[in-house]
Amino acid sequence: MKSVLILNGPNLNLLGQREPEKYGTSTLHDVEQLCRETAAKHDLSVTCLQSNHEGELIEALHQAGKALLKGDMLGVVFNAGAYTHTSVALADAIKGANVPVVEVHISNVHQRESFRHHSFLTPVSEGVIAGFGITSYVLAIEGW
Amino acid sequence: MKSVLILNGPNLNLLGQREPEKYGTSTLHDVEQLCRETAAKHDLSVTCLQSNHEGELIEALHQAGKALLKGDMLGVVFNAGAYTHTSVALADAIKGANVPVVEVHISNVHQRESFRHHSFLTPVSEGVIAGFGITSYVLAIEGW
Amino acid sequence: MKSVLILNGPNLNLLGQREPEKYGTSTLHDVEQLCRETAAKHDLSVTCLQSNHEGELIEALHQAGKALLKGDMLGVVFNAGAYTHTSVALADAIKGANVPVVEVHISNVHQRESFRHHSFLTPVSEGVIAGFGITSYVLAIEGW
Amino acid sequence: MKSVLILNGPNLNLLGQREPEKYGTSTLHDVEQLCRETAAKHDLSVTCLQSNHEGELIEALHQAGKALLKGDMLGVVFNAGAYTHTSVALADAIKGANVPVVEVHISNVHQRESFRHHSFLTPVSEGVIAGFGITSYVLAIEGW
Amino acid sequence: MKSVLILNGPNLNLLGQREPEKYGTSTLHDVEQLCRETAAKHDLSVTCLQSNHEGELIEALHQAGKALLKGDMLGVVFNAGAYTHTSVALADAIKGANVPVVEVHISNVHQRESFRHHSFLTPVSEGVIAGFGITSYVLAIEGW
Amino acid sequence: MKSVLILNGPNLNLLGQREPEKYGTSTLHDVEQLCRETAAKHDLSVTCLQSNHEGELIEALHQAGKALLKGDMLGVVFNAGAYTHTSVALADAIKGANVPVVEVHISNVHQRESFRHHSFLTPVSEGVIAGFGITSYVLAIEGW
Amino acid sequence: MKSVLILNGPNLNLLGQREPEKYGTSTLHDVEQLCRETAAKHDLSVTCLQSNHEGELIEALHQAGKALLKGDMLGVVFNAGAYTHTSVALADAIKGANVPVVEVHISNVHQRESFRHHSFLTPVSEGVIAGFGITSYVLAIEGW
Amino acid sequence: MKSVLILNGPNLNLLGQREPEKYGTSTLHDVEQLCRETAAKHDLSVTCLQSNHEGELIEALHQAGKALLKGDMLGVVFNAGAYTHTSVALADAIKGANVPVVEVHISNVHQRESFRHHSFLTPVSEGVIAGFGITSYVLAIEGW
Amino acid sequence: MKSVLILNGPNLNLLGQREPEKYGTSTLHDVEQLCRETAAKHDLSVTCLQSNHEGELIEALHQAGKALLKGDMLGVVFNAGAYTHTSVALADAIKGANVPVVEVHISNVHQRESFRHHSFLTPVSEGVIAGFGITSYVLAIEGW
Amino acid sequence: MKSVLILNGPNLNLLGQREPEKYGTSTLHDVEQLCRETAAKHDLSVTCLQSNHEGELIEALHQAGKALLKGDMLGVVFNAGAYTHTSVALADAIKGANVPVVEVHISNVHQRESFRHHSFLTPVSEGVIAGFGITSYVLAIEGW
Amino acid sequence: MKSVLILNGPNLNLLGQREPEKYGTSTLHDVEQLCRETAAKHDLSVTCLQSNHEGELIEALHQAGKALLKGDMLGVVFNAGAYTHTSVALADAIKGANVPVVEVHISNVHQRESFRHHSFLTPVSEGVIAGFGITSYVLAIEGW
Amino acid sequence: MKSVLILNGPNLNLLGQREPEKYGTSTLHDVEQLCRETAAKHDLSVTCLQSNHEGELIEALHQAGKALLKGDMLGVVFNAGAYTHTSVALADAIKGANVPVVEVHISNVHQRESFRHHSFLTPVSEGVIAGFGITSYVLAIEGW
Repeated sequence: MKSVLILNGPNLNLLGQREPEKYGTSTLHDVEQLCRETAAKHDLSVTCLQSNHEGELIEALHQAGKALLKGDMLGVVFNAGAYTHTSVALADAIKGANVPVVEVHISNVHQRESFRHHSFLTPVSEGVIAGFGITSYVLAIEGW
Repeated sequence: MKSVLILNGPNLNLLGQREPEKYGTSTLHDVEQLCRETAAKHDLSVTCLQSNHEGELIEALHQAGKALLKGDMLGVVFNAGAYTHTSVALADAIKGANVPVVEVHISNVHQRESFRHHSFLTPVSEGVIAGFGITSYVLAIEGW
Repeated sequence: MKSVLILNGPNLNLLGQREPEKYGTSTLHDVEQLCRETAAKHDLSVTCLQSNHEGELIEALHQAGKALLKGDMLGVVFNAGAYTHTSVALADAIKGANVPVVEVHISNVHQRESFRHHSFLTPVSEGVIAGFGITSYVLAIEGW
Repeated sequence: MKSVLILNGPNLNLLGQREPEKYGTSTLHDVEQLCRETAAKHDLSVTCLQSNHEGELIEALHQAGKALLKGDMLGVVFNAGAYTHTSVALADAIKGANVPVVEVHISNVHQRESFRHHSFLTPVSEGVIAGFGITSYVLAIEGW
Repeated sequence: MKSVLILNGPNLNLLGQREPEKYGTSTLHDVEQLCRETAAKHDLSVTCLQSNHEGELIEALHQAGKALLKGDMLGVVFNAGAYTHTSVALADAIKGANVPVVEVHISNVHQRESFRHHSFLTPVSEGVIAGFGITSYVLAIEGW
Repeated sequence: MKSVLILNGPNLNLLGQREPEKYGTSTLHDVEQLCRETAAKHDLSVTCLQSNHEGELIEALHQAGKALLKGDMLGVVFNAGAYTHTSVALADAIKGANVPVVEVHISNVHQRESFRHHSFLTPVSEGVIAGFGITSYVLAIEGW
Repeated sequence: MKSVLILNGPNLNLLGQREPEKYGTSTLHDVEQLCRETAAKHDLSVTCLQSNHEGELIEALHQAGKALLKGDMLGVVFNAGAYTHTSVALADAIKGANVPVVEVHISNVHQRESFRHHSFLTPVSEGVIAGFGITSYVLAIEGW
Repeated sequence: MKSVLILNGPNLNLLGQREPEKYGTSTLHDVEQLCRETAAKHDLSVTCLQSNHEGELIEALHQAGKALLKGDMLGVVFNAGAYTHTSVALADAIKGANVPVVEVHISNVHQRESFRHHSFLTPVSEGVIAGFGITSYVLAIEGW
Repeated sequence: MKSVLILNGPNLNLLGQREPEKYGTSTLHDVEQLCRETAAKHDLSVTCLQSNHEGELIEALHQAGKALLKGDMLGVVFNAGAYTHTSVALADAIKGANVPVVEVHISNVHQRESFRHHSFLTPVSEGVIAGFGITSYVLAIEGW
Repeated sequence: MKSVLILNGPNLNLLGQREPEKYGTSTLHDVEQLCRETAAKHDLSVTCLQSNHEGELIEALHQAGKALLKGDMLGVVFNAGAYTHTSVALADAIKGANVPVVEVHISNVHQRESFRHHSFLTPVSEGVIAGFGITSYVLAIEGW
Repeated sequence: MKSVLILNGPNLNLLGQREPEKYGTSTLHDVEQLCRETAAKHDLSVTCLQSNHEGELIEALHQAGKALLKGDMLGVVFNAGAYTHTSVALADAIKGANVPVVEVHISNVHQRESFRHHSFLTPVSEGVIAGFGITSYVLAIEGW
Repeated sequence: MKSVLILNGPNLNLLGQREPEKYGTSTLHDVEQLCRETAAKHDLSVTCLQSNHEGELIEALHQAGKALLKGDMLGVVFNAGAYTHTSVALADAIKGANVPVVEVHISNVHQRESFRHHSFLTPVSEGVIAGFGITSYVLAIEGW
């Protein structure tokens, strides 16, 4: 059974309590549970990781790259939060680890501040899904 | 049984023959057939329209808005092609017709020319799905 | 009796139902009726045309230019909607047809998104009137 | 009988002698007389003020705000001349005094230098009228 | 005998009457006749099409692509008028239809407004000829 | 006893009545009284001046510079209102008069329009305090 | 007794030895001691944290948000150092944790390189104090 | 005997005491005396005016325009100080009054901040002289 | 028999060996021979000059201007190579010598780096021909 | 024997496996071994550190600054990877720690994406060496 | 007797015949004669050089620097023509040769194309004189 | 024995006397001697050329390309001085001559004016070395 890494970046541990009118009331735990259920339907397992540290996210992508080489992993569903807009290092990690990534966002980032309209990750990702609330994660898993 | 409008913009009638290394070999007919099958699984019907004319796409959105008021329609899956990047009028049509739209792209537009990185439609759409090939349409329907 | 062309662009057929808090509840039919009444007070007749097609608007301006040469027409009151901000071709049509145009807007476009602050039509128009609701059309006719 | 303030900014005291091919030969006195006659037709009185001093224009707007609260005033027809393009303080005065303003220009400013294409006043004004020569003032009064 | 499509965009039906000091007094009919004669000298036939509708121009390029596959067509001489500067969809049509295009302009567009200095079509065209009056069309045909 | 000049720029005479949800209900008189009380606690006296005229503010800074040389003055607490964003002349006056200035703002100007994000005065001021309501003035005096 | 978090970002552990002509000779320990004394005068306690790790600063803000909900905390005095200019994630943490923040800077950042003139934190902070040396911290505590 | 107006703008009354390393130790009085002497050598008289008020400078230019029409005046030597970089109204006054102006600067403004590199006055002035210290005024008079 | 100057700029002496996949295998000698033959067909002679020195190209244009006045010359076919994008002095030479120039490029410069998209020469040239390989020179001569 | 710190930033632990066509097949271990050998030839020792965490890199620079003061260290050879382009905090750390740094890059970063053309570190580094493959490290050590 | 170098750049050999409505009918010879006469009045000699070659102008500045060291030269009056706007090398030559330069222009360059508004030479020159026709040279010599 | 060309651009003949605090006191002769010695250690010979003429530098690169084909040359160490920032023609010469170039700078150009931060030569060079004083040349030779 192949695995998908559900990787969440900075502040996503606040899900459910942070601006619920924008992000809904589901917690990160709910999201991860939903991913597990969706994956199970497609005979996939999921590993989940959330970190507020850019360095830890980089290393999680490196690990995913190694697992991929072993044949254990299908790819990464990645919500990089604010690092989406500022981190060249995460983009390099995706390319360096040579791991397929689907970029997800809960909200439609293009309806927010202009500095959120640019993503360093999109050019190195397979695809992007944004604006479906936590269903964005579900669609990303189904996209595989 | 509610309906979803599959709306395709300029040059998408060339699908399958246009730069197949970028867009694949499926034709527009294949895409529409795939949408029909996906919709059927969710007890939805689909109407399909492709036009190279900005004005016809505007009017299709107006019609979708009227169908929505009658309760016949769920929303629009819209691949506006090149008009995505240049048409304020289509964005106004989405808002004016007050119809929920999911913006889809076959390719990952952020890996292409910089003038394709801006979309007038995203700020008025519910969500965006890009880069999954023709599966982008499938995920958009499942997002409902 | 000379005539004025009341030319309305994309999405203005939705007037009255589209974002009424911004555009009011009067329909396009009401606007055209109001223009007729205003014109009559000044011994003018009006012709009315609305189109969502950039090409049809171009051709309407060409026709107006011909009518002007015949001495039948005074000029055009033109609300180009979203094409105001994107259409070089309409600006060329105004110059090419050599017909006097007054640009009108129902809302004060400068209180909206920044891409609505630039108009390709203003430099080739006689004058601009914006922000008076549908009275903008009345003032434009009276400006002659 | 309610009053309208006709407020003219820097260099408009030169009207009639300054670049007459662009601004016509009517003097400021003619403009003010024309406004008086137009207002009279609508049972309005006008007060007229011209100043080359930004501070005096700010204070005239403050006075207009006080008159409005007393019920004596309908609003301001304001040709701010060059301050249109440089004065944040006048925009703040309009908002602070909470007085309705119609921005007018004699010439079509969008046919001139690019630094005249931006107005700090438009976003805080009710409407804009430009390009009708001194008739711009007439239309502004009739717009009420 | 192979054919060349002479494709003219918006407002070019006004040739001869529109700003003759800039575009000369030859009409579109004259241009098309001149193309026919030039082509005949090189044992080529020409088809001519003018449209003010972006969608029709897109579809003419699609048709040219099909004719090319059949071996009937050599390529397109395309004066896209104002759409040159705004239409990503026409650029996509050229690439999608996979048809060789020579971009022509009657005037030297770089001596005009700055928004005419950028062309979406040049990067997908074989070559560009501008500034020779209607002789631009002749040179384009001879370039084959 | 040394003195501090409390210098207020354009529209600050409207304090208390201008957009109270943004600036609070305290009047300019209240602010000046509060400054007097705060200064007294630190054995300082205050002089207060408000002007809507850029020239008068320039001259007040010149006077402050002279008082400083006499040893009568400590410095200036300056809320330049809208001139903050447009006046190079006030910045020159601060440097020319060689008088220490603390720039204050009642609201957090960085939460407002982008043209309010740049200050010509900050590079020539000792410090900046913004966003504490009228307490901004208190902190500025205490900063001495 | 309520608490204030004194949060210092990257390189502030070098205070006193780093460019003393710009930042003075007080060490971070001195700053924290000064904050403790100032807070005590207002019956407040302070917690102090310095980190060079963006992730740790994010998590400190999350903890502050939790303490706030318990009623233990008043807010955060935050000198984010260089992250002020580059970190969207810290801005999101402030909003997500819903904790009042006063942004402080020792030097007047607007007298330095232009990339230091923009702050991602100001729009989500209550207020800003800059340029008072380490007294900036004192004023921030007194601002509460 | 014809006259030249020596017009000095904001902060130039501080000459001699303001940043003497940049502007020298001569006072405004010295400059005006120097201009008188230079003018006398060429059988010209000078009038001198300094103001910190934009409005007064505008009106001085208007008066110069009137004197020119009477044949009493040759033109204006204008050091507009900081208004050089911000005042569209002064540029309009020069054009409106139709008076020949030579723009002078004591220092070489292009060696200073970038916002001093643009002048609204140069395009409407006859010539520019900068960087010769107070000799700039002498050369300007001799240029006539 | 009138003459045309074939003027080639920097690095064009490398033609045939420099990036042949972009510029073809014809040498500069071949190009000049082709020009001679084309000119002969139209009863024209050609002079040929290549230089890597901007100053020599300037002076060649000056000479062409003199020959034009004598009636010996028709104009210049000019491929300025990289100087196209950087040389204001060559543009001034064209205007100063008052000689008609046709700008030619072998490749389609708009398919290359963005700094090659701007030409200082186009606004002062009669026409532009690009992208036809060395046939660009032929068409330029035939354009006369 | 003095020491040089070989400091490597994010993703450089992937060297040898990450895009070998761009970065070669040597691993980080090989690079560090090569540095040791080069240093030995010049009677220098090296310490090596790689981290994906911006905070750890900051602190390594702080440590280097302390070692420098003790006389144990000569300086730092720093390949900051992607943080080169985004980290103001690392630039501050270099200045704050007052340690001489040579910036190295394996590839010629100016041949890659434009966001890699700007480095926050160059203005605070002694020198830059880029494009020599892993020999860049050797040259940096020899530069001492 | 000290000497002044009158240095003229590209295309100035065309003076008198090049666009005489902009540059007047005086030739370069006239200008040099006028400089000689002006210099003689002040007991100065002049050397004159014109070149269209950037390299020759650089070397002329180097020579002037050497003459200055010998005490033979006062400085350079330099009209660099189009190189004013493009040549960093000439600016470096001025600084490197350490020779005082007065930049002159015959026309008011700020009334021409925007690429003529920036000068690389002004920041390294003593002063600038523009717009006085050939009298600009006279004033420059008198400025010494 | 293979050769390396040491190519120096404009103003580098002034080395040693030009701003010695920035460039040191070594002369060009010293640099060339140093290069000879370094090359000898690696069994290489050097040819040295300095020119202030862009055209001569272009031709030196062409010659180097020919020598390379003959097998006599290894490559070019190129300090293009100010032409680094303005010359597209030199970049084309490097590519056209197909000769390996190492770009060197004595100073760290990124610590100087912003127009020196962009190099047209870096994208076509093998590597870059800057900031090591004249040792930059040594390292460049050793990089081979």
